[in-house]
Amino acid sequence: MIVSGRAHPELAEAVAKELGTTVSPTTAYDFANGETYVRFNESMRGADVFVIQSHTDPVNEWIMEQLIMIDALKRASAKRITVVAPCYPYGRQDKKHLGREPISARLMADLFETAGADRLMSVDLHASQAQGFFNGPVDHLWAMPVLVDYVRSKTDLSNVAVVSPDAGRIRVSEKWANQLGGCPLAFVHKTRDTTRPNVAVANRVVGEVEGRDCILVDDMIDTGGTIAEAVKVVKNAGAKSVTVVATHGILSHPAVERLSSCGAEEVVVTDTLPITDEKRFDNLTILSIAPLLARAIREVFDDGSVTSLFDGVA
Amino acid sequence: MIVSGRAHPELAEAVAKELGTTVSPTTAYDFANGETYVRFNESMRGADVFVIQSHTDPVNEWIMEQLIMIDALKRASAKRITVVAPCYPYGRQDKKHLGREPISARLMADLFETAGADRLMSVDLHASQAQGFFNGPVDHLWAMPVLVDYVRSKTDLSNVAVVSPDAGRIRVSEKWANQLGGCPLAFVHKTRDTTRPNVAVANRVVGEVEGRDCILVDDMIDTGGTIAEAVKVVKNAGAKSVTVVATHGILSHPAVERLSSCGAEEVVVTDTLPITDEKRFDNLTILSIAPLLARAIREVFDDGSVTSLFDGVA
Amino acid sequence: MIVSGRAHPELAEAVAKELGTTVSPTTAYDFANGETYVRFNESMRGADVFVIQSHTDPVNEWIMEQLIMIDALKRASAKRITVVAPCYPYGRQDKKHLGREPISARLMADLFETAGADRLMSVDLHASQAQGFFNGPVDHLWAMPVLVDYVRSKTDLSNVAVVSPDAGRIRVSEKWANQLGGCPLAFVHKTRDTTRPNVAVANRVVGEVEGRDCILVDDMIDTGGTIAEAVKVVKNAGAKSVTVVATHGILSHPAVERLSSCGAEEVVVTDTLPITDEKRFDNLTILSIAPLLARAIREVFDDGSVTSLFDGVA
Amino acid sequence: MIVSGRAHPELAEAVAKELGTTVSPTTAYDFANGETYVRFNESMRGADVFVIQSHTDPVNEWIMEQLIMIDALKRASAKRITVVAPCYPYGRQDKKHLGREPISARLMADLFETAGADRLMSVDLHASQAQGFFNGPVDHLWAMPVLVDYVRSKTDLSNVAVVSPDAGRIRVSEKWANQLGGCPLAFVHKTRDTTRPNVAVANRVVGEVEGRDCILVDDMIDTGGTIAEAVKVVKNAGAKSVTVVATHGILSHPAVERLSSCGAEEVVVTDTLPITDEKRFDNLTILSIAPLLARAIREVFDDGSVTSLFDGVA
Amino acid sequence: MIVSGRAHPELAEAVAKELGTTVSPTTAYDFANGETYVRFNESMRGADVFVIQSHTDPVNEWIMEQLIMIDALKRASAKRITVVAPCYPYGRQDKKHLGREPISARLMADLFETAGADRLMSVDLHASQAQGFFNGPVDHLWAMPVLVDYVRSKTDLSNVAVVSPDAGRIRVSEKWANQLGGCPLAFVHKTRDTTRPNVAVANRVVGEVEGRDCILVDDMIDTGGTIAEAVKVVKNAGAKSVTVVATHGILSHPAVERLSSCGAEEVVVTDTLPITDEKRFDNLTILSIAPLLARAIREVFDDGSVTSLFDGVA
Amino acid sequence: MIVSGRAHPELAEAVAKELGTTVSPTTAYDFANGETYVRFNESMRGADVFVIQSHTDPVNEWIMEQLIMIDALKRASAKRITVVAPCYPYGRQDKKHLGREPISARLMADLFETAGADRLMSVDLHASQAQGFFNGPVDHLWAMPVLVDYVRSKTDLSNVAVVSPDAGRIRVSEKWANQLGGCPLAFVHKTRDTTRPNVAVANRVVGEVEGRDCILVDDMIDTGGTIAEAVKVVKNAGAKSVTVVATHGILSHPAVERLSSCGAEEVVVTDTLPITDEKRFDNLTILSIAPLLARAIREVFDDGSVTSLFDGVA
Repeated sequence: MIVSGRAHPELAEAVAKELGTTVSPTTAYDFANGETYVRFNESMRGADVFVIQSHTDPVNEWIMEQLIMIDALKRASAKRITVVAPCYPYGRQDKKHLGREPISARLMADLFETAGADRLMSVDLHASQAQGFFNGPVDHLWAMPVLVDYVRSKTDLSNVAVVSPDAGRIRVSEKWANQLGGCPLAFVHKTRDTTRPNVAVANRVVGEVEGRDCILVDDMIDTGGTIAEAVKVVKNAGAKSVTVVATHGILSHPAVERLSSCGAEEVVVTDTLPITDEKRFDNLTILSIAPLLARAIREVFDDGSVTSLFDGVA
Repeated sequence: MIVSGRAHPELAEAVAKELGTTVSPTTAYDFANGETYVRFNESMRGADVFVIQSHTDPVNEWIMEQLIMIDALKRASAKRITVVAPCYPYGRQDKKHLGREPISARLMADLFETAGADRLMSVDLHASQAQGFFNGPVDHLWAMPVLVDYVRSKTDLSNVAVVSPDAGRIRVSEKWANQLGGCPLAFVHKTRDTTRPNVAVANRVVGEVEGRDCILVDDMIDTGGTIAEAVKVVKNAGAKSVTVVATHGILSHPAVERLSSCGAEEVVVTDTLPITDEKRFDNLTILSIAPLLARAIREVFDDGSVTSLFDGVA
Repeated sequence: MIVSGRAHPELAEAVAKELGTTVSPTTAYDFANGETYVRFNESMRGADVFVIQSHTDPVNEWIMEQLIMIDALKRASAKRITVVAPCYPYGRQDKKHLGREPISARLMADLFETAGADRLMSVDLHASQAQGFFNGPVDHLWAMPVLVDYVRSKTDLSNVAVVSPDAGRIRVSEKWANQLGGCPLAFVHKTRDTTRPNVAVANRVVGEVEGRDCILVDDMIDTGGTIAEAVKVVKNAGAKSVTVVATHGILSHPAVERLSSCGAEEVVVTDTLPITDEKRFDNLTILSIAPLLARAIREVFDDGSVTSLFDGVA
Repeated sequence: MIVSGRAHPELAEAVAKELGTTVSPTTAYDFANGETYVRFNESMRGADVFVIQSHTDPVNEWIMEQLIMIDALKRASAKRITVVAPCYPYGRQDKKHLGREPISARLMADLFETAGADRLMSVDLHASQAQGFFNGPVDHLWAMPVLVDYVRSKTDLSNVAVVSPDAGRIRVSEKWANQLGGCPLAFVHKTRDTTRPNVAVANRVVGEVEGRDCILVDDMIDTGGTIAEAVKVVKNAGAKSVTVVATHGILSHPAVERLSSCGAEEVVVTDTLPITDEKRFDNLTILSIAPLLARAIREVFDDGSVTSLFDGVA
Repeated sequence: MIVSGRAHPELAEAVAKELGTTVSPTTAYDFANGETYVRFNESMRGADVFVIQSHTDPVNEWIMEQLIMIDALKRASAKRITVVAPCYPYGRQDKKHLGREPISARLMADLFETAGADRLMSVDLHASQAQGFFNGPVDHLWAMPVLVDYVRSKTDLSNVAVVSPDAGRIRVSEKWANQLGGCPLAFVHKTRDTTRPNVAVANRVVGEVEGRDCILVDDMIDTGGTIAEAVKVVKNAGAKSVTVVATHGILSHPAVERLSSCGAEEVVVTDTLPITDEKRFDNLTILSIAPLLARAIREVFDDGSVTSLFDGVA
Repeated sequence: MIVSGRAHPELAEAVAKELGTTVSPTTAYDFANGETYVRFNESMRGADVFVIQSHTDPVNEWIMEQLIMIDALKRASAKRITVVAPCYPYGRQDKKHLGREPISARLMADLFETAGADRLMSVDLHASQAQGFFNGPVDHLWAMPVLVDYVRSKTDLSNVAVVSPDAGRIRVSEKWANQLGGCPLAFVHKTRDTTRPNVAVANRVVGEVEGRDCILVDDMIDTGGTIAEAVKVVKNAGAKSVTVVATHGILSHPAVERLSSCGAEEVVVTDTLPITDEKRFDNLTILSIAPLLARAIREVFDDGSVTSLFDGVA
């Protein structure tokens, strides 16, 4: 059974359609003071339920709604409850960067478990280590095949280069470079002006991009600052064209302004998060993640192999 | 140590002032996509920390912020973490009214525990049974002494009657009647017009209110519908005056319109929740809950007796 | 599979008979020092077991026996263990009335879970909030349909009134009034004589009962003091007749004396607890709860809907 | 702080007296239907509490009372809760003897932990392995020094022999033999008459007892059948005298008859369980366990070493 | 499904063969720094998996490998995970012999549970109480039928005696004596020379063994010191022959030397642990435990009765 | 109190010496079958204990020893138990690289918690996300200050470049570049020869290293293959000199051969792991980690701030 929160019902419907079923109807609304009410309209006793929620702004609302849905399912005697969080919430707060910070990504896993979740499904976790935050099976899906197929179909692979927007994401870029035929790899290096500490940061490209069609790869685009800056630096370094590719299109303000004016030829994301009209712009391409989720759900439901979807890579 | 969420910092400051201390400074803000960031500015290692949050609209935001604060405290090696939730969130969803509903009040207790809370402090739980939802000590405070003192100081007790706005809250009204010298007790009874099912509901007063100064008692006022209707019914039944008294002033829209026009002489609440300017109206009286919270916190901190604050009643 | 403790084997047998099965044979006895021994005579491996126990005096014995049965089932590899506690033990100790009290109703839920129970089934919990004490599915059944059907069949609904014996149980009485066609509602109000504190309590009826056939409704009758006193007060207030209706007939001494002499025309209870011969008296009517339990167990076993038994009310 | 259940208040008082303190007053009684009510009269906030209960018949009552006391202490914010169970309940059901049996001794440990116990103190567990049933510190005390001292003071060690009443308790007897100077050791062996299966059992002594003053050692005496039979067998084998020594004097009916007529010169037990007047007989000697408990409690309270009381043996 | 650790793959294969299946292929090796890597080659989603490991030297390696296998199975969505530990690791550290010791046998049970094990299967636990260390079903198998059948087939039962090598194992010997027709029972008693404390220990036989074919019974043989000494003492006491029988042949150095030269006619063990060539000697007989494990696994898998394999004894 | 496993007692002694105390004496040895025995010689009741173990080969032995030490401490009533694992075991298995793999790094955290650990201290986790695997406070220390100070003292910063040996560790190299004054940054990129798939891998340097003194940075050196290869590639790219710096010197065979012959001018590690004589070679420099651990332990013990040791970075 598929049930859906209110954040992005179109995604759940698309997944259900792929599976040849429908989303089970749910009553959900907020009370005047902001408290969330949820009730399932059909019996859930003994059911294998997938609770799809898309953690877009306001994230906290949608987390809480999903937790309440899980609690209701547990008390309604569902047999197994799988949280489907295509864009895992608080994925970037996966460690303490400073003392006395939370590790919110772990906290989310614990909250889901406490509410009653048996398993978790997500796409492109910010750090793969977050799989280990949940005390149960995690189906970690990769959007890369979807994105790579699209890029391959539009790009001259003999002249391509893969660029990472910062030092921390080069591992993923390296995978892309391999997928695109062992093409060159570069990254944008942030250096501080040591003569004027805390004042200016210069970015420069490490690696060769001159004259190449560059694919700038990241897992998510939030306000777009790092990405837009990277596009400019790569352009300045002589790139022939720049295509930005990311799994999660958060696209918080002012991402639209930044991305549409940064000089990138195209920006490609999936719809793990809803992309409302005001977040859309001319050279934005949105690929559907629903077929991937649907295939994974079917494997889970049938006791098949999710691993097989990715040639063994977890 | 006292730390505070962003929902109602004035309350935490008032509590701290009563205790002769200050609120420990915290860095807290929301990211562009709605995720919440929290960091404590001072060392929490070994500290006995009280995390005050006021669960006003948007409730889910403030719950999540408080959970993240607790997680950060746990990981920062705080010795003991006490959740102070003056108006317990989701207190009214404390049982399944219909099948396949959540029991959100229990869920909240579990979430607090999972995040790392050792104990809980709250004022006037919607149902006292919610004390049993938390697997640890709960300090359940009563605002009644604060409210009764105020009412006593303004009312002719020889002509008073206590009225419950519906059948479910009469127990509390009975306590009020005892506190006010054994005065008469009444309640508003909702009856369905059985000839036209689901269409009309008639309310009538059961008990004597004619010519009396009526104290209409409830634990919280949300949109004010039930209360305002009750005021009218009591007035129509011949009450000389009606004073509305409640612990928690949620005052969601359109409570202000309803309460200011329902005919009540005065509406009395405490500030367990922040009451913003647009929620205020002429005959609204706000009593401070800070002294009560401060006394309870002191007793907890000193291993004294919270019970002693209420003559043994828990 | 149905297994039964020794407190009320007739109830388990009646339930099994309704289900067209038999109670699985169990060896159970007490050692000379009072320790309880239990062993199941048939294999429980992989079974979906319902453990029926009736928590009558001596309650502690029967709780411990049920816990030991659950432990044995867990270790014998039962697939799922459902505690059936028609009259939930310690249901009235569901909150702290005074400081330093236990919340025994929560403790019972935790003990059942610790021993190995997966789910809980009960009838008419003293407070519905106790559903939230158990960390798993709770099937909360209502005896009201059984009782209402009986009362309807014997009463002139045009002249009926529903009376609550005290302020705390009016909510249930209001439901009854609605079920009986929107009839009048009243309650007995206890007032202290304020001139002589702690010495005398006067009871009086709030609401109209004169000339009416009154249905006095409660969830349980223990020693019968409150109920018998209420009958007298209602009679004195001019009631034409009084029928007492309650789900759980604890009937501890001296309930029989009180009830048989209080003036009630009839006292109606179900057999959630065994009613031994010395607890029976002339105008006592006992309705069987077995058909209701059997239907609920069948729904649980078949992954049907228990909610559907009560028109959606949980 | 010392608090005590109602099973054996004299023991708690004796312990408190040894410690130079008093038992903290507790309100405890049973309701008419057998439910137990407990409330502590003094504040327990931050206290280090020892909950002494003696698990005599009716054992289940006293276990439940103790669990409820622990729950109340946990909710009253006690800092640390130590269960003192001088004679651990259900100690003999520490494994499955047959399929589909419970392991009640483990269940008891889990129930204590669930209720809120932090640590456990007991004397002479039936099997030392039961220490491992509790998920926390266990202070396992040995009554042997108390008993050996008494026996030594009355016995000619040059002519003594230690006898185990059955094959399973010889390990303890061996320790006794060592403590008594390396004296001879024997045991009573039960053999089935293989020509008439299931009909008769013959007991015989393995080892030399003729002409010796025999010390028959066991951990507990329940109905006394095995012990009394062993005394006779040992006497028949030519023993000069037989002294029975055991830590726990359960003495269930018909232990008194059996022991007083079996021919033993003396029966020695401690008062881990209350020994009521009807359980006493002429040659019964009762040694006080209170000094041992008191010393152990003092070591725990002072963060000293309980191990040091027994020369390192746990 | 059967999977196997690397300690004793032959045993798992023998079990699988008995069941008419094969061991599921697993990739397992150690990294250069000693860390263990495990991966299952086939999908485990929804499978009922038995994880067989033989806890031979180096025990800690094999425990850790098994824990890692369980973790991988849990994360690979196995439906149920059964630990098969024919010779339970750390079974002898099942209680604190001295203060400040661990209870490693309980710790192992907790580690298995934490990693994700649902149930446990073992043969001849050192103390049956260890069943209670695991918080779930334990299938405790007895090798005695296998061993007794072998002994019966080779021994003149009219002249046999059963001997326990020390005081603590006489209970098992008594069971053997009953199985062998109620034959005589004896044990080896260690006495200290009290004139020279801590210097010398004399062993002597308690019970009659002269002229008899003695069966010396133990649960395991480690370095063989106790057993070899017991054989000599029994021989010196006039035994006609001595056969040593034990379930678990640990046979640590110098067991081979001791056993082959102690005078025993035959030493019989099972292959719960692998017995490498250097541990074999002329009069050593190894019985296969695989048929017993296979039958038990089949009963578990089919929801049959393991108890039935042992006539009800658990 | 400081206690130490047997893997690297010198480290614990060095830490204790820095703290002006001594390591508490422990009895620890292995039985003949490989089982580990541990006992503390001094009372641990109420103590704040730090359990230092160095997870060198054989890692599984040392993990199990540490778990058993923790269990013994828990049962010996230690007040707080801190695991000190300078080189966190299984830190590299922190996610599933392929389906049906374990997440051993999370498993280790759970095992420590199950055994009884309250908190964890480690140095330079392979991925910082592993902090979130433990459900409690983690003190994550950085060796970078120690290493940077040493490098700074020996290097001409005007001509330095920082190089990452592979794409996944560039983030750390970037921090180093910042610490060394914003110097150039490069990394070694592995590319597959796409004409001959799976046959050959070419490495090349991305970024400028020609003529520079290169600092090759990694968190650990195991067999040294990647590092030695990187040194050669960097040398071939024209580096003037190469210094290898890493926190954890695992140095498994054949690291010594590789590193001593790869052309690096110096290899710098700390002693989080013991570096035995056969692991030492001429240009290897070993820095002591003991002062850092000692300072952190002191802050934890005194409820100070570990964060303050690293300027707020966690």
